[in-house]
Amino acid sequence: MVNSIPWQEKPKEHTEVLWRYSENPIIKRDAIPTSNSIFNSAVVPFNKGFAGVFRCDNKAVQMNIFAGFSSDGINWDIEHRPINFKEGNTNMIASDYKYDPRVTFIEDRYWITWCNGYHGPTIGIGYTFDFKEFYQCENAFLPFNRNGVLFTEKINGKFAMLSRPSDNGHTPFGDIYVSYSPDMKYWGEHRCVMKVAPFTESAWQCTKIGAGSAPIRIKEGWLIFYHGVINTCNGFRYSMGAAILDTYNPEIVKYRTKPYLLSPQTNYECMGDVPNVVFPCASLHSHEEDKVAIYYGAADTVVGLVFGRLSEIVEFTKNNSL
Amino acid sequence: MVNSIPWQEKPKEHTEVLWRYSENPIIKRDAIPTSNSIFNSAVVPFNKGFAGVFRCDNKAVQMNIFAGFSSDGINWDIEHRPINFKEGNTNMIASDYKYDPRVTFIEDRYWITWCNGYHGPTIGIGYTFDFKEFYQCENAFLPFNRNGVLFTEKINGKFAMLSRPSDNGHTPFGDIYVSYSPDMKYWGEHRCVMKVAPFTESAWQCTKIGAGSAPIRIKEGWLIFYHGVINTCNGFRYSMGAAILDTYNPEIVKYRTKPYLLSPQTNYECMGDVPNVVFPCASLHSHEEDKVAIYYGAADTVVGLVFGRLSEIVEFTKNNSL
Amino acid sequence: MVNSIPWQEKPKEHTEVLWRYSENPIIKRDAIPTSNSIFNSAVVPFNKGFAGVFRCDNKAVQMNIFAGFSSDGINWDIEHRPINFKEGNTNMIASDYKYDPRVTFIEDRYWITWCNGYHGPTIGIGYTFDFKEFYQCENAFLPFNRNGVLFTEKINGKFAMLSRPSDNGHTPFGDIYVSYSPDMKYWGEHRCVMKVAPFTESAWQCTKIGAGSAPIRIKEGWLIFYHGVINTCNGFRYSMGAAILDTYNPEIVKYRTKPYLLSPQTNYECMGDVPNVVFPCASLHSHEEDKVAIYYGAADTVVGLVFGRLSEIVEFTKNNSL
Amino acid sequence: MVNSIPWQEKPKEHTEVLWRYSENPIIKRDAIPTSNSIFNSAVVPFNKGFAGVFRCDNKAVQMNIFAGFSSDGINWDIEHRPINFKEGNTNMIASDYKYDPRVTFIEDRYWITWCNGYHGPTIGIGYTFDFKEFYQCENAFLPFNRNGVLFTEKINGKFAMLSRPSDNGHTPFGDIYVSYSPDMKYWGEHRCVMKVAPFTESAWQCTKIGAGSAPIRIKEGWLIFYHGVINTCNGFRYSMGAAILDTYNPEIVKYRTKPYLLSPQTNYECMGDVPNVVFPCASLHSHEEDKVAIYYGAADTVVGLVFGRLSEIVEFTKNNSL
Amino acid sequence: MVNSIPWQEKPKEHTEVLWRYSENPIIKRDAIPTSNSIFNSAVVPFNKGFAGVFRCDNKAVQMNIFAGFSSDGINWDIEHRPINFKEGNTNMIASDYKYDPRVTFIEDRYWITWCNGYHGPTIGIGYTFDFKEFYQCENAFLPFNRNGVLFTEKINGKFAMLSRPSDNGHTPFGDIYVSYSPDMKYWGEHRCVMKVAPFTESAWQCTKIGAGSAPIRIKEGWLIFYHGVINTCNGFRYSMGAAILDTYNPEIVKYRTKPYLLSPQTNYECMGDVPNVVFPCASLHSHEEDKVAIYYGAADTVVGLVFGRLSEIVEFTKNNSL
Amino acid sequence: MVNSIPWQEKPKEHTEVLWRYSENPIIKRDAIPTSNSIFNSAVVPFNKGFAGVFRCDNKAVQMNIFAGFSSDGINWDIEHRPINFKEGNTNMIASDYKYDPRVTFIEDRYWITWCNGYHGPTIGIGYTFDFKEFYQCENAFLPFNRNGVLFTEKINGKFAMLSRPSDNGHTPFGDIYVSYSPDMKYWGEHRCVMKVAPFTESAWQCTKIGAGSAPIRIKEGWLIFYHGVINTCNGFRYSMGAAILDTYNPEIVKYRTKPYLLSPQTNYECMGDVPNVVFPCASLHSHEEDKVAIYYGAADTVVGLVFGRLSEIVEFTKNNSL
Repeated sequence: MVNSIPWQEKPKEHTEVLWRYSENPIIKRDAIPTSNSIFNSAVVPFNKGFAGVFRCDNKAVQMNIFAGFSSDGINWDIEHRPINFKEGNTNMIASDYKYDPRVTFIEDRYWITWCNGYHGPTIGIGYTFDFKEFYQCENAFLPFNRNGVLFTEKINGKFAMLSRPSDNGHTPFGDIYVSYSPDMKYWGEHRCVMKVAPFTESAWQCTKIGAGSAPIRIKEGWLIFYHGVINTCNGFRYSMGAAILDTYNPEIVKYRTKPYLLSPQTNYECMGDVPNVVFPCASLHSHEEDKVAIYYGAADTVVGLVFGRLSEIVEFTKNNSL
Repeated sequence: MVNSIPWQEKPKEHTEVLWRYSENPIIKRDAIPTSNSIFNSAVVPFNKGFAGVFRCDNKAVQMNIFAGFSSDGINWDIEHRPINFKEGNTNMIASDYKYDPRVTFIEDRYWITWCNGYHGPTIGIGYTFDFKEFYQCENAFLPFNRNGVLFTEKINGKFAMLSRPSDNGHTPFGDIYVSYSPDMKYWGEHRCVMKVAPFTESAWQCTKIGAGSAPIRIKEGWLIFYHGVINTCNGFRYSMGAAILDTYNPEIVKYRTKPYLLSPQTNYECMGDVPNVVFPCASLHSHEEDKVAIYYGAADTVVGLVFGRLSEIVEFTKNNSL
Repeated sequence: MVNSIPWQEKPKEHTEVLWRYSENPIIKRDAIPTSNSIFNSAVVPFNKGFAGVFRCDNKAVQMNIFAGFSSDGINWDIEHRPINFKEGNTNMIASDYKYDPRVTFIEDRYWITWCNGYHGPTIGIGYTFDFKEFYQCENAFLPFNRNGVLFTEKINGKFAMLSRPSDNGHTPFGDIYVSYSPDMKYWGEHRCVMKVAPFTESAWQCTKIGAGSAPIRIKEGWLIFYHGVINTCNGFRYSMGAAILDTYNPEIVKYRTKPYLLSPQTNYECMGDVPNVVFPCASLHSHEEDKVAIYYGAADTVVGLVFGRLSEIVEFTKNNSL
Repeated sequence: MVNSIPWQEKPKEHTEVLWRYSENPIIKRDAIPTSNSIFNSAVVPFNKGFAGVFRCDNKAVQMNIFAGFSSDGINWDIEHRPINFKEGNTNMIASDYKYDPRVTFIEDRYWITWCNGYHGPTIGIGYTFDFKEFYQCENAFLPFNRNGVLFTEKINGKFAMLSRPSDNGHTPFGDIYVSYSPDMKYWGEHRCVMKVAPFTESAWQCTKIGAGSAPIRIKEGWLIFYHGVINTCNGFRYSMGAAILDTYNPEIVKYRTKPYLLSPQTNYECMGDVPNVVFPCASLHSHEEDKVAIYYGAADTVVGLVFGRLSEIVEFTKNNSL
Repeated sequence: MVNSIPWQEKPKEHTEVLWRYSENPIIKRDAIPTSNSIFNSAVVPFNKGFAGVFRCDNKAVQMNIFAGFSSDGINWDIEHRPINFKEGNTNMIASDYKYDPRVTFIEDRYWITWCNGYHGPTIGIGYTFDFKEFYQCENAFLPFNRNGVLFTEKINGKFAMLSRPSDNGHTPFGDIYVSYSPDMKYWGEHRCVMKVAPFTESAWQCTKIGAGSAPIRIKEGWLIFYHGVINTCNGFRYSMGAAILDTYNPEIVKYRTKPYLLSPQTNYECMGDVPNVVFPCASLHSHEEDKVAIYYGAADTVVGLVFGRLSEIVEFTKNNSL
Repeated sequence: MVNSIPWQEKPKEHTEVLWRYSENPIIKRDAIPTSNSIFNSAVVPFNKGFAGVFRCDNKAVQMNIFAGFSSDGINWDIEHRPINFKEGNTNMIASDYKYDPRVTFIEDRYWITWCNGYHGPTIGIGYTFDFKEFYQCENAFLPFNRNGVLFTEKINGKFAMLSRPSDNGHTPFGDIYVSYSPDMKYWGEHRCVMKVAPFTESAWQCTKIGAGSAPIRIKEGWLIFYHGVINTCNGFRYSMGAAILDTYNPEIVKYRTKPYLLSPQTNYECMGDVPNVVFPCASLHSHEEDKVAIYYGAADTVVGLVFGRLSEIVEFTKNNSL
């Protein structure tokens, strides 16, 4: 029997769709001895509990990803050494750095995607069966790319991945695309999915957007949580919204929240290495219990948790669509 | 009989000219159900209490202005729907967005000015007699402009307005000008009033400045509160100063504070959607009681209140002039 | 009897709507002793010949405007001293610099508009009856503005002016607006007329556009020549197009050339103080003879002349509209 | 029997490896009625003569590609209407613009690659058998990319393409990568081939580089001509060099010219819509006659031709390698 | 007898090399009546206690330096008036502003270096025997320079100074150099000491670095504390590291911390006039007691204190070298 | 007997103070086999003729300096290999690149200064007695600096050098300073000499200025030729002016031309690797004959020569002073 996903009931006075875990942040910046910060990390159900891949920047501020385990999804044991990949479908597994991992179970294994340093940021791909041995595959794309997120099922017989073409700096633009692959090695059929919103319609997502957690299959299609960025006179502010993509043609956006679902408002979201960031990278959900728990990086420093009812989120997304 | 303006005596140990209200912020970011933030707002005496026009950005971060009412100037009831303007002296009342309102009573009505989205930011003008029905007039200027503030009386028979010519982004420059109009429709006689200060003389106001609350008629001329901006390596910081303009030729600056009167120092001023902002937009005063209460946006998120003695402020401005 | 406008028949092999004068440039950079360059200048019929206002930058590269006279519109005598303005409808005639003049005859006098340095560029206004005595009026707008061009008749009883709001540098944006004035002193009713074109539809005018010569009254409304700018990886390139505005509501664009009418292609347009610039500022026309001669600055260094048939230009503008 | 490639003997006094055709430019900017400029174009042997795909920007400065034919490679008949693509291996053949084509014959057909506007620049792919009917395939990559150039043979059983990941503006960086595809639809195995050179070692190629003409199979591997860019205080300057890549692992650079082979020096290279550009896109060669004729865009305005001896170029590249 | 340096034992659970003083910040922003902020300041043992030179920005945000005294190194009396320099080895003691002082005792007197405003920032030099009378010398270098720090002994018979060449704004680059002088008037023999670290190896110091406190003579050479900066999408973040330079050739870096020793993590380091800054300017140490106390500016607003064991720091620096 | 300096009488119709040599450019871009361009070079009388140090960028666009000789100052033999420096007053003669040399004879030898690549541009110093053997000294300053020019005599017993502090890119600012040295090793007493001119007073020199040829001792003090830069929307334009500095206090500017003396106007000045550049680096003069011949780089590609009468230049400078 599998453990339940982390949960806390909505506070009485709370009127928003999502509510934060009262003990946030669940992972502190120094949760392992070498870490400067732990954030933008991904978790999945694993065995009777949960496993995850964590972005831990060390005190030299080098970025790498680490495996971790938890029985309740809240208290985590993170390995003290980064994941050591073996050769998967390629022997070219060069990597200057790894960050912002996502984890997706497809068919028989856990696929990990991350931002991989190969002459600049691009999308790295790897897989594991057990979170002990990890295999690295061909990078999905040419540089420069970030926020590669796999769908949890093949679509029309092919693997499908969301990503956000970028440049080689603090990219001031960015839209979400979907690409397909017959074999996790060669990618094509690139389609634009969602662009930034006009400033006058939804300013929190007017500078760039990027996919967050792995899409959740719902009746209406695919539910995704994504981040949106506004460029203020004091830097970028990262908030979170939701969208529903078409089941078989995920390049079709059926609904997309005009208001944000979550924006940086607490101390641990507004203060840290990069102030004013909430950045979703993973979620756990139960259709039966109508629950979702979203993991997000806060201020590029720690990991927070926010809860919601799937049905309410879907309803809200449909009723408040851009 | 009119209600008194909000007031709190200066704390004993306090040595500055202005002191913050102990219960700041008086208006929280979520004071109305749809709001992401409420700040940079304007109030005036109205009937036996007070009325105001509030900038409420919704959770799509769309900017609009809302009417509100209060009996004590501290506890406010803000309408849940934005102001719906009717046609005033024009039928061209297009508006992509409205923000940073000011309210000025002149002769027979309450004039509202705001930053109006018409192919970029410019100065919108409207009026109301009762804060129920609102009429929108011609925009005062071509884009790009911000911080339009009307004088409370005609000067030499004409309406007079301060404003700050800008560009279409996070403008990195900006000085205060005055313009005149015989009819609130056509504007001219544009004069430069105050420029940014040299970095070596008063760095807090060396990047851009803009008028804040409606000028207060005093013996020496017009007392204005204005914001000044310094460009740090971590973004813009907004502080507040005061100046005294000549009564009949307000393009003549008689005094202007070299030190700031208020700078971002508290949690609610230093943390929020745009950290390190204090931005005055309105004040209530009583010459008899020698009191002024200044309303200011804090961190582009909430509204704060700060108190002072008119006589002390004038004295300080004269004695610490640039 | 008035002299004919300058003219040269279209070369046989020429297939474009406009053709250059074979002896271009008609005014060399050193046409007066102190000049570094003479360009972006305006001419009108005057007495039996022509008069003009010329932008002559001196060898300190200070910008000022000079009167000039010609019997044939091609050979010009330009005064060696800049225009010395007297006080017109104001005593505030401060001017750090003057450039890019236009001249328009309305009712009883010749109005001159130019880019006037008053705390940055804005639109200066003056008039003359005889090109000997000149009177300066209130600046039309707050800074920052450029390319103010008056209509040759009042529209709905008011003076009307095209202009392009700008910033205080090498403005990388810019659209054309129209504003109205009852008295040449106060201006209002600002309307957006034409915005830059999308890059994919008409790239030569995708960065900024600005009015050129005074509008010509035609059956279909007002014919204007304007400049458009594209930002290449080696700087701005200025080309010229035409548009037809509605007679009584010139904010309505009826037609606008998608292709340019003239782009920098000759040595004197591609080489000079600012390479790759053609910049129209004036035209002479004869409805009877179906002729127009357009004066344009070339490479910010000299003045060129280009000819066309009014009927062909109108036809082309209608048939090749954006 | 096939026509000879264009040729002219090296002038006596000439000491460089390459020499320009004396009648350059061979294609003028207005070679077709609608064109503003014709440059950055590709040619191949076809039937008894030559065919090509030409970038013709029209006078709205819209970018598109056109087929053309020539019996001698110098005098070209270019179609007056752009290529109209039918659906190839996809029905998604959206294209906001097309520019900088290359043509490569592989096995049974002519493949065309170009910079294709799909939410920004990426690499478009199409093919033709006869230069009459054209079929468009899936874009090779996600945006943003430019300068996609196919190898003339499959490498290790797969199609191979050079390209240069970019951003969405006047990209100030850029290196050359190779990618592989089993089917011209899905692409992977992305490898970095060549990066910009250090400023102190070879400044003409220190800002960005991009593949030019289709690689030529030689004994030592693949000979490529590529462009390199330096960012001067007056904009980008584009020059041309050569490199030799390994036959079966083209990501290995065996030699690469430290000096340029050609830089902008003539009037038609230094003056035009974008001054100081030479940009190779195609070459014709004869191993038997030891000749190569390289077609290059000049000043983003016209097409030039430059000649060389294959053996000398290879020798020079080996002896002057970075 | 001299007072002990400030000290507090390391908290039990603490695993880092350095630990903060529990009562931080030791100097508040308003410690003198006119101050907006007090930070980036320097202290030395003096008589039986300590003296210092403090950067106090006043409320006009003018930067100047002030003397101060303390018996315990924690509680400071700072003069209310800035230091008034007399002429030292020059009569050119112009200074638009003074900030970021360091103090170094060499041979017979206390030398003060600071960032001196002379047509932009450069390195000012002065000395005092008693912290009452101060003498200003020639600026060490041409503008633009910051962070000049003198060695506590002559090296090879000459004065030696670390500094960081800069530009005239928020410099986005910066390496540490050493220069020598026979006489504190003429400087030469400029050598590069340490450059920024590669982003992938030690990102916290990848944008710019600058010397902090005066070098401490240890067995291995000179121990220095320096600041390093990373450019995040929300501005610069300043952290602190250590390095060991060669005794007689300080341009040779023997060890240099790859991880930071201290980064902004507390409220007073993350919130203030410039968020996310720790900036060391001075230290007190006792070889006998194996103690060091480092003074650092926090958030450009206040002064903090952090403690460590010299031996541990040296060990850590050797074991974690870049 | 010494050869006369190069000379050509002023053309009859010429009204300017300076006139170009009719056979300009005197040195072509390919005057030596490896050169891409030869410009910004320096000459002095030597033996019975002239010697010089030339900036020759090779075809890898690497910058280095070369010796050359001429009997008439017009026809030059430039060595085919760059100058090979031996150790002078230091063994640190590292140099990533060398460019923009100046040559000054002081007392017993020829001193060469140039822009030397040592972790960015700074001022390199060397000397020769015979233009065969060259010795390199300590760099004068910390990076970043350019345009170091020595006075031809010691001033108050010390060597004196003009220079322009810069940054590490296409510096958008720059003023001229003077520094002193007792020994050509240690430098100090840095004084600001001349700053850029206000845009409204002399725009050609409003962005940056830098010393050109070695100062000429005249009755009124030191006559210098310098370059001034304006930032146009199509890049930097470099012109030339003159100034007269005080004999014993050269930081005092007695006169400075408000108009330029020479600006880019000819084909070889307006077209080339960097269009629109005239850049003086050396001059030959004869007080007896009242002649000066100024050598200047044109378009960063070739060397030009311009003549003038010393007396006229001095007169003009005094009468047209800023």
